[in-house]
Amino acid sequence: MTFRDVRMRGFRARAAVADVLAWVDSRPAPLGAEDVSLLGAAGRVLAEAVVAGADLPPFARASMDGWAVRGASTFGATDLEPRPLRLVGDARPGRRCDVEVGDGEAIRIRTGAPMPEGADAVLPAEDGEEHDGGVLARGEIPPGRHVGQPGEDVRAGTQVLAAGRRLRPQDVAILSSLGVTPVKTGEEVLRAGTKPEGARIADANGPLLDALIRRDGGAPLQRGIFGDEDPRLETEIAEVPADVVLVTGASSVGPEDRVPSIVARRGELVFHGLALRPASPTGVGVVAGRPVFLLPGNPVSALCAYDLFAGRLVRRLGGRPAALPYPARRIPLARKVVSELGRTDYLRVRVVDGRVEPLTSRGAGVLSTAVRADGFVLVPADLEGWPEGALVEVHLYDPEA
Amino acid sequence: MTFRDVRMRGFRARAAVADVLAWVDSRPAPLGAEDVSLLGAAGRVLAEAVVAGADLPPFARASMDGWAVRGASTFGATDLEPRPLRLVGDARPGRRCDVEVGDGEAIRIRTGAPMPEGADAVLPAEDGEEHDGGVLARGEIPPGRHVGQPGEDVRAGTQVLAAGRRLRPQDVAILSSLGVTPVKTGEEVLRAGTKPEGARIADANGPLLDALIRRDGGAPLQRGIFGDEDPRLETEIAEVPADVVLVTGASSVGPEDRVPSIVARRGELVFHGLALRPASPTGVGVVAGRPVFLLPGNPVSALCAYDLFAGRLVRRLGGRPAALPYPARRIPLARKVVSELGRTDYLRVRVVDGRVEPLTSRGAGVLSTAVRADGFVLVPADLEGWPEGALVEVHLYDPEA
Repeated sequence: MTFRDVRMRGFRARAAVADVLAWVDSRPAPLGAEDVSLLGAAGRVLAEAVVAGADLPPFARASMDGWAVRGASTFGATDLEPRPLRLVGDARPGRRCDVEVGDGEAIRIRTGAPMPEGADAVLPAEDGEEHDGGVLARGEIPPGRHVGQPGEDVRAGTQVLAAGRRLRPQDVAILSSLGVTPVKTGEEVLRAGTKPEGARIADANGPLLDALIRRDGGAPLQRGIFGDEDPRLETEIAEVPADVVLVTGASSVGPEDRVPSIVARRGELVFHGLALRPASPTGVGVVAGRPVFLLPGNPVSALCAYDLFAGRLVRRLGGRPAALPYPARRIPLARKVVSELGRTDYLRVRVVDGRVEPLTSRGAGVLSTAVRADGFVLVPADLEGWPEGALVEVHLYDPEA
Repeated sequence: MTFRDVRMRGFRARAAVADVLAWVDSRPAPLGAEDVSLLGAAGRVLAEAVVAGADLPPFARASMDGWAVRGASTFGATDLEPRPLRLVGDARPGRRCDVEVGDGEAIRIRTGAPMPEGADAVLPAEDGEEHDGGVLARGEIPPGRHVGQPGEDVRAGTQVLAAGRRLRPQDVAILSSLGVTPVKTGEEVLRAGTKPEGARIADANGPLLDALIRRDGGAPLQRGIFGDEDPRLETEIAEVPADVVLVTGASSVGPEDRVPSIVARRGELVFHGLALRPASPTGVGVVAGRPVFLLPGNPVSALCAYDLFAGRLVRRLGGRPAALPYPARRIPLARKVVSELGRTDYLRVRVVDGRVEPLTSRGAGVLSTAVRADGFVLVPADLEGWPEGALVEVHLYDPEA
């Protein structure tokens, strides 16, 4: 536990983005599993593989509405010379029909109903009609036609969904069909967002982080805004019941930037000051065994540092992929981009006529650039930029479609 | 109001998918606007454009930690021959500093704090140090450097966000900075999912539709499962307090398929039976002025009919784009696809080695195909399929990244 007050000295050396990413990836993840109800399970990450305990369907069933028959009874039937069949019963989904179908007989059946004994095919409603207590078959139906076999959908013992799967609506439906409920998914992440300072300035970072954390599968715990002298900030950082602690503002090297000192005093300040534009006043530390991310107070910088580092851990803790949760496209640059060697740049861009246009702004941290932008490009530390026309990877802010 | 009982007659003619889409698009949408809190507004659709009522920032502010100075006072300063400045005050974010900065003077300042009178630049913390009650400037800072001008982020009177914008986290942040809270967004859609029948069959469609409706911005109202004879089904369809009514099952032409009759008796059954595989037993109607979607009981068919028709209206009612909410890619077919002329096919596919492989299954409605698939391809009614290698549009089930 080393404590070094860096305030008003500036960052002498700045950590490389790659080193912070490696640190984030070295943290244990994901959190343990928890049981969740199927309603609301879509979007959660499956903690354990699901293996079917029984065949789905468990019995042969009709896959059309019509009449269960022996296919052979319809041989020779045509629209002009329909074949008469005796109607001997009614089969409904969800119950077994106890009438057996013999030669020349038919049982009314609905899609999904178990096939009655003796029947091997379904004459579709379109191909027959009921008439005087019987059925007229107007076409030939070969045996097996319009019948779903047991296990046709899922065979007992096969793996239906792998661990780590992000559940789709149809996954939830098949789990329900298999009777798997509740389902075990990655635990949601509890987290504290604290923001020191900011009395008369509107709080942009509270709603920003709330939305980002929810997007990444976490459960934000807003702890409020703490003034420069408020002693509760230190207590919150050390004791808040969360898996990850985020603090925005007071993360830099000014006289009131007390968060780095608090983290260093109560735990370890692992990184402070990054070779990253516009989020250089970012810090990462550990207090009481929990990672603490010191995010800049500027909202664009907070967005950048959250997405790159804090969000990466939130995603991993919830069992999601660590990568940036934005669709990525390779698109040519409309003009050259210049960046400082050794520094990673988070460049907001627009995509116009299939080309990437960097949004220039004197203030690298101007929030409206992130609002106007279609996405961002990360200029890696080992490049001084790109020439016009270079194919670059754009991370698009909006989910597709 | 025409009532025609189609049960057990089969669909004589099937409506074209394009006609149903045109009907859905003719329904009035979106719903009215409602005020929502900024927390939770991300993902909602903005009902009205937002115009900035004031400059952001409203004052010139420091964009670095350091000291507010007159740039001219630092001229000639170098690391070897630093320039001494008198420290005359402290400026903090959120309050005005009432000390004026003169020639050869400096005021300690933090990022975001209003610039004091007289100062025109910020000497960054890295380029100076405090010493004996003064500041040593170790470099030249031209006037204007590290100062954000009023309106630099957003000028008063400019439109910040357009109506119809799906709010991103950073949009919520800028609205908060502008003091716009609550924000007016498209109303959420209330909807009733009823499911007739299904006593002993696990209900896959309830959780499926719950997840799909939420994904599309709606608020599902589950109304339960109704048996074949249950009179409450008709009352629910006619009176449930919802903007759209979805019913799964009992939508076809079998003897227990009573939903088409109920809709025809209580309102209008506009379409029944579609030229669509696997969701042909789909119906669309209007009861008490509200659209009613009759979705097939088979979960894959319900997924298909929901996504194409019901979901389209849910999305429009909430102010979202009508299009399918899946990322789309043009990818070549690994093998030829055959489809019936005049019928639209909803083909589940996998993407393997950059090529599209249709998932074949005897049962077109087998749920596991939608679970194993990466996405789907719609084969249009006017095509008999495609040859191997044709570029087809794949709708990917998973959101990207």
